[in-house]
Amino acid sequence: MSEHITIFAPATIANVGPGFDVFGLALNDIGDTIEMSLKDEKGITIINGTGCEGLPTNPETNVAGVALKAMLQDLGTDQGITIQIHKNITPGSGLGSSASSAAGAVFGLNCLLGSPYSKNELVQFAMEGEGAVSFSPHADNVAPSLLGGFTVVRSYDPLDVISIPVNMQLWFTVVHPQIEVKTSDSKRMLKREISLKQGIRQWGNVAGVIAALMGGDYDLLGRSMHDPLIEPIRSMLIPGFDEAKQSALKAGALACSISGSGPSIFAITASERDARSVSESFSKIYKRYNIDHHIYISGLNSEGTSIVE
Amino acid sequence: MSEHITIFAPATIANVGPGFDVFGLALNDIGDTIEMSLKDEKGITIINGTGCEGLPTNPETNVAGVALKAMLQDLGTDQGITIQIHKNITPGSGLGSSASSAAGAVFGLNCLLGSPYSKNELVQFAMEGEGAVSFSPHADNVAPSLLGGFTVVRSYDPLDVISIPVNMQLWFTVVHPQIEVKTSDSKRMLKREISLKQGIRQWGNVAGVIAALMGGDYDLLGRSMHDPLIEPIRSMLIPGFDEAKQSALKAGALACSISGSGPSIFAITASERDARSVSESFSKIYKRYNIDHHIYISGLNSEGTSIVE
Repeated sequence: MSEHITIFAPATIANVGPGFDVFGLALNDIGDTIEMSLKDEKGITIINGTGCEGLPTNPETNVAGVALKAMLQDLGTDQGITIQIHKNITPGSGLGSSASSAAGAVFGLNCLLGSPYSKNELVQFAMEGEGAVSFSPHADNVAPSLLGGFTVVRSYDPLDVISIPVNMQLWFTVVHPQIEVKTSDSKRMLKREISLKQGIRQWGNVAGVIAALMGGDYDLLGRSMHDPLIEPIRSMLIPGFDEAKQSALKAGALACSISGSGPSIFAITASERDARSVSESFSKIYKRYNIDHHIYISGLNSEGTSIVE
Repeated sequence: MSEHITIFAPATIANVGPGFDVFGLALNDIGDTIEMSLKDEKGITIINGTGCEGLPTNPETNVAGVALKAMLQDLGTDQGITIQIHKNITPGSGLGSSASSAAGAVFGLNCLLGSPYSKNELVQFAMEGEGAVSFSPHADNVAPSLLGGFTVVRSYDPLDVISIPVNMQLWFTVVHPQIEVKTSDSKRMLKREISLKQGIRQWGNVAGVIAALMGGDYDLLGRSMHDPLIEPIRSMLIPGFDEAKQSALKAGALACSISGSGPSIFAITASERDARSVSESFSKIYKRYNIDHHIYISGLNSEGTSIVE
């Protein structure tokens, strides 16, 4: 039982085109770095590290705190923990910032306690943590942050998360225009009813995405990565979205859509070269709009949460 | 260019659990046997063979006739054809009877004309034929009848049919209780709107089915093969459905649902032995209900439409 541990919990893209509330994937290099140690006194002590300005340190309202408490309760222990989170994803970016904190925290505690749970079992606790900041608990960011790769939340009741074997090289170019879109606002805009016809179109594309990823079919991935249901509504809150999407497709992207509830936009490409071309096209547009923005280029993170040291 | 040809066009199961209007699969042994030949005079002559009592022989209203006309028009020819269809699937069984006729007819003509089209290209014509007897043209039966295996109609506009590589042995037990359920009635009962929540559940399961089939995961297939959206409505027209489903699951089936719009019910098993147990349980129930019924046991047909001689 190690007494101090440093964890990396990757940033994630949820929804990923047609898979609203179901699909998610993990990115390389960007994410939370979390330092944790066990302590003799009871209770969870949260220290805000880099990039955590303004986040609560009360374990009852901090996503990592809530996730850790859910796990401790399930274990039936009151083990004390100190946790410090360093962020390089801005909260509210649509890249699963709070999910990474929740995922990293439960993964770290699990390691410190000798791994009583599998990563898959940890999803439930991380989800409860994320539920602290969203309308209802969701797993489409915490699952890929924990497990890596491309995940499907097949069912919420009971929770059933599947890892999809991705048999192709994929690159992701993500632009985060620095405007604020609250997940709660973005959720409120969605209609609660959809037409059966819209549903059919959506699950046809969902089937296409899974077949493409597992079969290594780039063309099918591009044909299937459409979301005529949610994207047209959410994109209204993202200045320049249509232009950015068109420019990404023109620059060689297989697909382009909104990451989670936005405002980040992701494009998928088959090569790093294409990913760089998309990056340039994104940059050009948001410079013209005079909107500060970050751009990330990443492969698919296959490992999920991991021990840094 | 052969002048006479005999074609087998397999029966099919559409919807297959959560994939309403999208999933379809082909069965072995049961289906249409179609004899076709080119003739010197223009026009399509349809002769009703075994099991076709009461079906129209007018090419304007017969599914095979409409499909053939669509293909001839695309080819820009007025080639004359004689076609005789023998059925061993009862029309209205929910096993794609009209789709088999349409699929077999266009496949046969394509063979007689030296294969100007791929099987995938033939789906469009067969679909137009099937549209002659249904509210709107559908491809979820014609696609698997033509292509074999498990198919996904990813999109209707443009038409995009995907063949899913199935990496597992599967058996299907189908019971056809001899009661009449018109597809048109069955369609009318469906709600045109669904909740977003129902949609999310449906596409989670759709993703699970594809991942299970391609990954050879029996347990995941069983977990994903649920249809809480359409099955509860359509099953109201099928006496004994709930009992049949429960008995199939008890007899070892991985899943059990309605074939197309019913009244046929299919169960999926991992072995022929389990398929036979399910068959006995189906038989017991419908004997007790005193409803005449046919039971078929079949593997997954991998070939689709084929030349018999």
